[in-house]
Amino acid sequence: MDIIFIGAGNLATHLSQALQQAGHRVLQVFSRTEESASCLAALLDCPFTTDITEVLPEAEVYFFCVSDAVLQDLASRLYAHLRRVALVGSPCRGAGALFLHTAGSMPLDVLPTLRRGVFYPMQTFSKSRPVDFRQVPIFLESQTDMRMMELLARALSQQVYRLDGEKRRYLHLSAVFACNFVNHMYDLSARILESHDIPFSVMFPLVDETASKVHSLPPHEAQTGPAVRYDQNVMERHLDLLADDPQMQEIYKLLSRSIHDKL
Amino acid sequence: MDIIFIGAGNLATHLSQALQQAGHRVLQVFSRTEESASCLAALLDCPFTTDITEVLPEAEVYFFCVSDAVLQDLASRLYAHLRRVALVGSPCRGAGALFLHTAGSMPLDVLPTLRRGVFYPMQTFSKSRPVDFRQVPIFLESQTDMRMMELLARALSQQVYRLDGEKRRYLHLSAVFACNFVNHMYDLSARILESHDIPFSVMFPLVDETASKVHSLPPHEAQTGPAVRYDQNVMERHLDLLADDPQMQEIYKLLSRSIHDKL
Repeated sequence: MDIIFIGAGNLATHLSQALQQAGHRVLQVFSRTEESASCLAALLDCPFTTDITEVLPEAEVYFFCVSDAVLQDLASRLYAHLRRVALVGSPCRGAGALFLHTAGSMPLDVLPTLRRGVFYPMQTFSKSRPVDFRQVPIFLESQTDMRMMELLARALSQQVYRLDGEKRRYLHLSAVFACNFVNHMYDLSARILESHDIPFSVMFPLVDETASKVHSLPPHEAQTGPAVRYDQNVMERHLDLLADDPQMQEIYKLLSRSIHDKL
Repeated sequence: MDIIFIGAGNLATHLSQALQQAGHRVLQVFSRTEESASCLAALLDCPFTTDITEVLPEAEVYFFCVSDAVLQDLASRLYAHLRRVALVGSPCRGAGALFLHTAGSMPLDVLPTLRRGVFYPMQTFSKSRPVDFRQVPIFLESQTDMRMMELLARALSQQVYRLDGEKRRYLHLSAVFACNFVNHMYDLSARILESHDIPFSVMFPLVDETASKVHSLPPHEAQTGPAVRYDQNVMERHLDLLADDPQMQEIYKLLSRSIHDKL
């Protein structure tokens, strides 16, 4: 398939390369900033643009990998552009192409096109870290192009699911807890250690076992530590240690209370 | 070595068996409740008691694996008992034995004995889940018996460190963030999914990659998601989805703000 990427961030960087490796052609990359557009285009060996009215009309699929805040606006502007330059005799390209967005929390109908779908790979992507796409669950929604999207997704991943927009919103919210907030806990842990000259690497066995444990135990059964015992002596001593960071104190209190309340 | 365990919870269950497998003898188990005392004693094939004045005086090491709230009291009562039944001609047993506690946040001097140490294995232990002790970092503190404790620890683990009580308090606090609070985020994630009939297992690739990522990237560089972009549209929609749980809303807001503030 002939694909154009709208966006050149973490997800676009990994997804476009994975699709290229699966045999698809990336015709062009669009990004609002020249630096990220040129950087991804160089990786893919394809042209780039920072002007939405310069996006090529020849693609069969336009993949939107942009922040939710700009998705709707960019999709509308691209669609208007493609309608202006409608290709004679190519009904499945340009304005007749499939628009796909990758934003877990956004509804399908944020896209203005007749042929549209949501293609949500649920993983945390950083440019500098390779990702094995075969292990990335991909959640699909479409009323027009599910079969084609499944072919596309299965060429990348062993875990492909159909999921409607309502459930996907909760899935995305749940991923914020299981990934972004978890990572922030790692960050706060690392900051405490760093300020006492202890390398974060001593935490790796604990980090790994904590993650590994919930494969076999439901998280609420896996819980250990002072909050689950509601050991107020320990908790008060911990709060004293955090005296110079009221926000961390507040986090400590709120999470300890929540652990206890949800027992 | 001849060892007696004071406590029969998650840590005592794993540590006592690991020590037994390393060739040490567990002479007896004490616990305040007969159920847990008898359960661990059965695993170890040794006698048990629920009466501190029935603890045998013959041990060379008394290992305290009890909650911080009762540690000092139990240690004092055991020491008083051992002094009453002092063994003639055995200066390194009974009241002359080594007392070790395993509580990361407690100081060494909570133990009343001359020979004393802290033996802190930093891991999350649940009775039902096997633990590979070789991968568990053990942090030691003692002014009298460091050599013996190092021998004991190295027979169990490849990662043995000396760490003073001041730093250990911060290490323990940091472990609460990297393990207990992380696990609570998994729990909240699982609750959201459960209420929409999505199995938590779809999160495993994300959970694993989030943990794995911080082996090679500092956590603050590994951060992704709406809070790091401060995408207020997404965050407001997420808060709407949490409308029936004000505590989870509060957690969402506080952690999103903290991610943003710590950028």
